[in-house]
Amino acid sequence: MDPEAFLDIANQVIKLKMFPYFDIAHCVLCALSVREDLGSGAQTFSRKHPLACWLSYLLVVFAGGMVCNGLLGEPILAPLKNTPQLVIATLVWYVIFYMPFDIGYKVAKFLPIKIVCSAMKEIYRCKKVYDGVTHAGKIYPNAYVIMILIGTLKGNGAGFTKLFERLIRGVWTPTAMEFMQPSFYTKASLVASIIFVLDKKTDLISAPHALVYFGIVIFFVYFKLSSILLGIHDPFVPFENLACALFFGGIWDSLARILGRGQPKEESKDVKKNN
Amino acid sequence: MDPEAFLDIANQVIKLKMFPYFDIAHCVLCALSVREDLGSGAQTFSRKHPLACWLSYLLVVFAGGMVCNGLLGEPILAPLKNTPQLVIATLVWYVIFYMPFDIGYKVAKFLPIKIVCSAMKEIYRCKKVYDGVTHAGKIYPNAYVIMILIGTLKGNGAGFTKLFERLIRGVWTPTAMEFMQPSFYTKASLVASIIFVLDKKTDLISAPHALVYFGIVIFFVYFKLSSILLGIHDPFVPFENLACALFFGGIWDSLARILGRGQPKEESKDVKKNN
Amino acid sequence: MDPEAFLDIANQVIKLKMFPYFDIAHCVLCALSVREDLGSGAQTFSRKHPLACWLSYLLVVFAGGMVCNGLLGEPILAPLKNTPQLVIATLVWYVIFYMPFDIGYKVAKFLPIKIVCSAMKEIYRCKKVYDGVTHAGKIYPNAYVIMILIGTLKGNGAGFTKLFERLIRGVWTPTAMEFMQPSFYTKASLVASIIFVLDKKTDLISAPHALVYFGIVIFFVYFKLSSILLGIHDPFVPFENLACALFFGGIWDSLARILGRGQPKEESKDVKKNN
Repeated sequence: MDPEAFLDIANQVIKLKMFPYFDIAHCVLCALSVREDLGSGAQTFSRKHPLACWLSYLLVVFAGGMVCNGLLGEPILAPLKNTPQLVIATLVWYVIFYMPFDIGYKVAKFLPIKIVCSAMKEIYRCKKVYDGVTHAGKIYPNAYVIMILIGTLKGNGAGFTKLFERLIRGVWTPTAMEFMQPSFYTKASLVASIIFVLDKKTDLISAPHALVYFGIVIFFVYFKLSSILLGIHDPFVPFENLACALFFGGIWDSLARILGRGQPKEESKDVKKNN
Repeated sequence: MDPEAFLDIANQVIKLKMFPYFDIAHCVLCALSVREDLGSGAQTFSRKHPLACWLSYLLVVFAGGMVCNGLLGEPILAPLKNTPQLVIATLVWYVIFYMPFDIGYKVAKFLPIKIVCSAMKEIYRCKKVYDGVTHAGKIYPNAYVIMILIGTLKGNGAGFTKLFERLIRGVWTPTAMEFMQPSFYTKASLVASIIFVLDKKTDLISAPHALVYFGIVIFFVYFKLSSILLGIHDPFVPFENLACALFFGGIWDSLARILGRGQPKEESKDVKKNN
Repeated sequence: MDPEAFLDIANQVIKLKMFPYFDIAHCVLCALSVREDLGSGAQTFSRKHPLACWLSYLLVVFAGGMVCNGLLGEPILAPLKNTPQLVIATLVWYVIFYMPFDIGYKVAKFLPIKIVCSAMKEIYRCKKVYDGVTHAGKIYPNAYVIMILIGTLKGNGAGFTKLFERLIRGVWTPTAMEFMQPSFYTKASLVASIIFVLDKKTDLISAPHALVYFGIVIFFVYFKLSSILLGIHDPFVPFENLACALFFGGIWDSLARILGRGQPKEESKDVKKNN
């Protein structure tokens, strides 16, 4: 493709309007994830506890904004002030959970529709990460760690509110902590945040901003589709294993073991991590 | 009663000063609820852990304000800045928990006193709901959902902090989530919030504001008294069952079952909900 | 010692610069406490979950600031904006957890080094309590309870975030609530906060401010060292028992028991509290 045209597309992508189509795609996938999290009792639960179901779904939809507002001292409820967005979210929830013959759910689960929604959600995710980094950068211009954290949380907020989301539904799973086993989305958002911070705050990345943004969009969509279609779940694992081997003990621990002065055996045998 | 006089009373009610008598009534009932939540070990607990007892009681007393401040990005501790209120709350706590021969508790449990306190607390609750709706309306003039949420949380804050209140006392009951089984107070506060929002933001309610307010006060007090005296616990249940039948699956699920294409049997048998 | 010289030292102590040496001492002890909280699986955990390990450690290091910001409606993440402090904290974490042959940990555990770090941390703690009281006093000039609470939380923030810190590592221990069994640090911070509030807001304490501050520093360091070296863990217990006997039931309960109208036996037998 000729580079001019490519840059043109990139500039289009960066200006893409999110409301309402991307919001709908995001809401559909959130509703599906709530429903799947409820397991086989989802139908019953949604009939017996519509309020808890709706609130926990809203928390999933607006998770990124709520968590980041909470951490930045802004009103946690602010994401709900956008009434049209809220109405659309509620309609999607109703369609997925309560349509007669469960039509809404079955349509949303239909593979081509799910793929389109997933791709749109990834484009949305990239915008959220970028907005998060920009927003944090306005408040704390020199706090790189805060920018990266906020970008990551905006990108995969629902992962970090999972505990609380389940708590609204009366289920408590303290071991399902995102930090313990970060999902691919968290890692991808983390990498994207770091790239955006480098792009905005340093001169290390010389490409035009639109291209950087577009590159991350492609990266997000590509891995999402390969995850759905090919079952590739986490392309970061090899890099993580490398980092762990270099920095977080791997090599040193092996050396110490060889020299016979390391930690006892039962501790060292699962050093090879897959995080 | 002649309508003029009625409107006069309504105008009196709306201007009623809450401090200190209504605060005392509120604190007495909060202390009783903490004590009853502690069960038979209340005496022992209050002797062994006065700090945890006092803090969890304070959380109950100021729950509505704290939760709403937290959600609106305002200081969570702000409700504690009113020193006279805090002193009164602490005195009530001391009287209920530590009086010799447990006189404080026994007096507060005495039915006529409990009824008076309950009636006063309901008047207070109405004011809190109204203040919450007004406050949220000032920050987000068009966000109806936020106004209703804040009104409801102000009206029955203690219900939503129950989990955290118990956690302060070292007890964790994740299934006691208010959203799962909303109490009558939550539902009444929700209805009152909706009426206040309609009254303030639309022209649907043509009655003078004082009358609307007074009507809600009467509704709150009436149902509280009938709950204590007659044991009627939730007049909303029929409406909920109707709403569930119409909107949340009831009819459609039955239809689907009749047509033999619905969900499997074990899921549908408790469709008739009582929330 | 001649009083002039003493006041001179006090004035030196009050102006002591905390960064970077006191920060390092604080971080070393935080890293040790995280490692000890992880128990024998610390090595394995730090290799398998470096992200969760780092985040929970950061929460311990910045606990006081984060909790207080959260309660005062300020950005929870703000303590992370100080990049040099964050870099030092991360370096200390790396040294304690990942050094070859576990050198970092072994050096930090070496008694003389631990004693020096502990003493420095107590000096830092005193400064934090003072800063907390001052900060809260600026926002709420008449809210003594808020000042005392913020001072206490700043002084021993990590105690109050222990639940959440463990949750980040996927462990949930609801009974480890600081309010239930306040540690010595919490009580000492509470007493220091009360003294600072009295010093700033009333005329009860006539000594110069620097002397009050220095006195509290000496008190903190003295009891920390006696706790490490002599095993004296809580000099407050006798005072607490006295307060409980006088105010929280002790005497009245005994009286009621003697008069044969008190609570049943199984409740009263552990009235003698040690909180």
